[in-house]
Amino acid sequence: MRTSIATVSLSGSLTEKLTAAARAGFDGVEIFENDLLASPLTPEDIRARTADLGLTIDLYQPMRDIEAVPDDVFAHNLRRARHKFELMGRLGADTVLVCSSVSPLAVDDDALAAGQLRQLAELAQDFGIRIAYEALAWGRHVSTYDHAWSIVEAADHPALGTCLDSFHILARGSDPKGIEDIPGEKIFFLQLADAPLMAMDVLQWSRHYRCFPGQGGFDLAGLLGHVVRAGYQGPLSLEVFNDVFRQAEAGPTAVDARRSLLVLQEETGLAALPAPVVPTGVAFAELVTPDVEPVSALLGALGFTRTARHRSKPVDLWQQGEARILLNTGPAARRDGTALAAVGLESPDPAGAARRAESLLAPVLPRRRAPEDAPLDAVAAPDGTELFFCAGEHPELPGWTGDFESVTPRPDLHATVHRIDHLALTQPWHQFDEAALFHHSVLGLSAQESVDVADPYGLHRSRAVTNVDGSVRIALGVGPAPTDDGARAQHIALATHDVVAAARSFRASGGRLLPVPANYYDDLAARFEFADGELETYRDLGILYDRDTDGEFRHCYTETVGRLFFELVQRDGGYRGYGAQNAPVRLAAQHAQRPRR
Amino acid sequence: MRTSIATVSLSGSLTEKLTAAARAGFDGVEIFENDLLASPLTPEDIRARTADLGLTIDLYQPMRDIEAVPDDVFAHNLRRARHKFELMGRLGADTVLVCSSVSPLAVDDDALAAGQLRQLAELAQDFGIRIAYEALAWGRHVSTYDHAWSIVEAADHPALGTCLDSFHILARGSDPKGIEDIPGEKIFFLQLADAPLMAMDVLQWSRHYRCFPGQGGFDLAGLLGHVVRAGYQGPLSLEVFNDVFRQAEAGPTAVDARRSLLVLQEETGLAALPAPVVPTGVAFAELVTPDVEPVSALLGALGFTRTARHRSKPVDLWQQGEARILLNTGPAARRDGTALAAVGLESPDPAGAARRAESLLAPVLPRRRAPEDAPLDAVAAPDGTELFFCAGEHPELPGWTGDFESVTPRPDLHATVHRIDHLALTQPWHQFDEAALFHHSVLGLSAQESVDVADPYGLHRSRAVTNVDGSVRIALGVGPAPTDDGARAQHIALATHDVVAAARSFRASGGRLLPVPANYYDDLAARFEFADGELETYRDLGILYDRDTDGEFRHCYTETVGRLFFELVQRDGGYRGYGAQNAPVRLAAQHAQRPRR
Repeated sequence: MRTSIATVSLSGSLTEKLTAAARAGFDGVEIFENDLLASPLTPEDIRARTADLGLTIDLYQPMRDIEAVPDDVFAHNLRRARHKFELMGRLGADTVLVCSSVSPLAVDDDALAAGQLRQLAELAQDFGIRIAYEALAWGRHVSTYDHAWSIVEAADHPALGTCLDSFHILARGSDPKGIEDIPGEKIFFLQLADAPLMAMDVLQWSRHYRCFPGQGGFDLAGLLGHVVRAGYQGPLSLEVFNDVFRQAEAGPTAVDARRSLLVLQEETGLAALPAPVVPTGVAFAELVTPDVEPVSALLGALGFTRTARHRSKPVDLWQQGEARILLNTGPAARRDGTALAAVGLESPDPAGAARRAESLLAPVLPRRRAPEDAPLDAVAAPDGTELFFCAGEHPELPGWTGDFESVTPRPDLHATVHRIDHLALTQPWHQFDEAALFHHSVLGLSAQESVDVADPYGLHRSRAVTNVDGSVRIALGVGPAPTDDGARAQHIALATHDVVAAARSFRASGGRLLPVPANYYDDLAARFEFADGELETYRDLGILYDRDTDGEFRHCYTETVGRLFFELVQRDGGYRGYGAQNAPVRLAAQHAQRPRR
Repeated sequence: MRTSIATVSLSGSLTEKLTAAARAGFDGVEIFENDLLASPLTPEDIRARTADLGLTIDLYQPMRDIEAVPDDVFAHNLRRARHKFELMGRLGADTVLVCSSVSPLAVDDDALAAGQLRQLAELAQDFGIRIAYEALAWGRHVSTYDHAWSIVEAADHPALGTCLDSFHILARGSDPKGIEDIPGEKIFFLQLADAPLMAMDVLQWSRHYRCFPGQGGFDLAGLLGHVVRAGYQGPLSLEVFNDVFRQAEAGPTAVDARRSLLVLQEETGLAALPAPVVPTGVAFAELVTPDVEPVSALLGALGFTRTARHRSKPVDLWQQGEARILLNTGPAARRDGTALAAVGLESPDPAGAARRAESLLAPVLPRRRAPEDAPLDAVAAPDGTELFFCAGEHPELPGWTGDFESVTPRPDLHATVHRIDHLALTQPWHQFDEAALFHHSVLGLSAQESVDVADPYGLHRSRAVTNVDGSVRIALGVGPAPTDDGARAQHIALATHDVVAAARSFRASGGRLLPVPANYYDDLAARFEFADGELETYRDLGILYDRDTDGEFRHCYTETVGRLFFELVQRDGGYRGYGAQNAPVRLAAQHAQRPRR
């Protein structure tokens, strides 16, 4: 189906919005009236610009407070409408959204509403324009889609149909099944928006918290199924009012928006995309660093050995158990200090994974490789992290390890770490919702609940995405404000079967563990009973503890190098969390190690 | 009454919080458990630090999920409580908050709850500790203050009382009158928080949107009256969970917090402050500039004349009608480009106004004056703007105009501007709520409703404060994110009786008006009927138009110099607004004049 986006969903001037929508591959746009009013372009200029970009203008919106009013007010409204119809002619738009009245002048009289809408449609028809009448969830007398449709049906005019908006329908808890009773040709337009499930005033919810399909909690695939079965032939159009998207760059938001529609069409059976190829493990994490000494020392103290060197690039492989860290000291690494730049994901079908990613608009990265290197498929995540799809478990496929020449045999005897448990990546402030949708749709990972974590200087949010067996876990985080974007923290959590031994070994090798306040351990003593000496050991090493109904979690943290630090984690039983309960204490301890902001 | 603040209300480490609370003049603090856990200080260190700062520890909080549980769970809870009582002994805290259980293990059995709370109180008594039991608004079985009190009453133990929290009481819509039925000595603690009136989930509302008394919509004075009449003798303590305050500097937040308690005590008749002295007009606006030419040219084109020069400072007075602008080119002016640095407010009692401000913790500014200058009283607003109290209408008092020597007679013949209509000041992002409370309480101005305004790059908020006759109007604004703090826009709106003449005169004098898109005027034509040629005139000059049931508003804008621009406004009838309807178009036009961010 054709895809469209309302200009109000994107940040910037009208020109910036149109350009972003076109670049992301949308077929059309809804022109939001305020964007037109604020634009220095004439309607003719906008029409030409839109056409040059390959976009159609699918809707002009909104026209408010038209119907069910006294005669003199309606005469004024018709005059206003005539002006707008003339404008739409200049703009080349043939459908206008009329939303149900919120005016105190409107009366509760469906026959009057239908009669006036019929008059409006009569006038519109003279201009070759169609009226799409929509129920606002907070409309004064008309607030449900079936009510709006009954008025349209009663008005019975070919230039009058209804507009369905998923937010207005689902936010009120209406049953969308009744959509199938509306003749498809009378559904003039479909606006789609998701939203997080929140108990709040519906107007505020709608104006500030809408998001793209798949980012919230509504069953949009179910609703879209009903609309398609009704016979709707128009575009799928996104209309999203969101305080964060208003501030974000329009380009990435538009890409995220179109990705959400691709996923929605796939879920509804309207589009066939290459199937998701869920990664089966973490092949490697690649660090870039302008200063190899501190991070090498840290890896060494953690028990890693430099086992191999890339044949053609300044990249070393450090290994311990199944945990593999690449250390890249190439020129590209010198920009932002030590950071996690890339993740290798083991994939049962790397080429298929890349096709899936590409079909969902993930930027495919050029292969920067020597002729003899393995052809790794890679895409960029929304935060810029490069994701490589590696044929880890398929010896018949070319593997990335073949690019490396061994320098030291792998000494597995004293390994305290056996694999990478998870990667924690702080996201750009404006792209947190986008990141979860990306990892879910592109990589086929499941997104867990979002949790709030109190830092001494603001609330953080965190949301993990994982595969089924937990062999790939990525914790997506976001800080309290966009100002923190400059130094987004990242960490690599390393799995160990014995965190006490791993922490002792790290310290004995000269590593520095994050000190944890004694008060934290007094609280642990109040909450849990421990074996003799156990708590003293944790206190000494800075090991944090959590327990839930599934199992136990013990973890500790290294010092920070650049933007990066490591965590040692021991999971027992079926514990699937990340110690969120302990995060405020950890964050405060990390602040205490830094100079005051 | 004594004042206290919960550490969770302030940003930073525990040390930073304690210091800020002490500096703002609080008598005590509530220690929020997570702040203690995250602190590297021992309980004894915290006790000593708090005492050194002159603070008492009035409450330790919270203890959760204690009561109405099976015996084995309660045994575990008593063990946990014993640990915390020992901790409180080290800390020197004698009252602990126990909030009603949210645990799925809790049962709906008041007798069991009372019995277990009695046992807890028995144990607490051994430690010299008192239990203050509070109903959380979302408690599993106990969610109202009268229910919590009935359980306390049934438990009947001297070490057990109740804690009242204004948020939990008022958010649920409970009638606070029943508080008077509780014996005062059984109200062990009172926590105060305001909140904006929002229809949303009460837990989220409580955790993210609480604010200080007077910043929200609750009747806290009414509630406090009931508590006082009940005989409560303890401290007034603020417990505010707020996403913005968590990010703000603790120092200003603490001052704002204590100011809110002073105002609340005044409203409740518990404290007598110097009476507010409402300003009766704007004596002057003072601009600082490192480059006098552009702003002089702008003032000249607007019709101002340089009429006088300060006797001892590099400050010129520009005048037109009753609008007076001081242009300061002194060394202090050279920091941040052209900006509005000070406002002179005409006051019937400047000394009284300053006493009021000082009593409400407004920073009193040192008088930087030569011996012969008039002794102007001045304080700093939260955004740093200096507010001078001037004896404008009292010739018997020393006046600021006496410091100036005339250089040109005032040419009133062709004045197009007659006074300053309003000042628009963008506030630091973290201090928007504080600013409204400051202007309301310190200056006695009335705060109007907060309105959202869409900028192309995010939502702005704006809230005006005014005196009764509108002769002092200040529009407080805030941008979408803290990142915009660096270049906070300011503007001075000048009142004219004929905005068309004023705009023409400005343009004829070489001034540049902000161009407004033609599409805006097409929309005006659709919405209103104008006399022949009227709209063309507005279009030509960039004049914006608004109408409401009170009257009409016409306004236009100059180019921006530094952070500052001017607006020319014509009010007809009783129009009291600021053209918020037009703000998105104006903001977009201003963005279009600037290089892309």
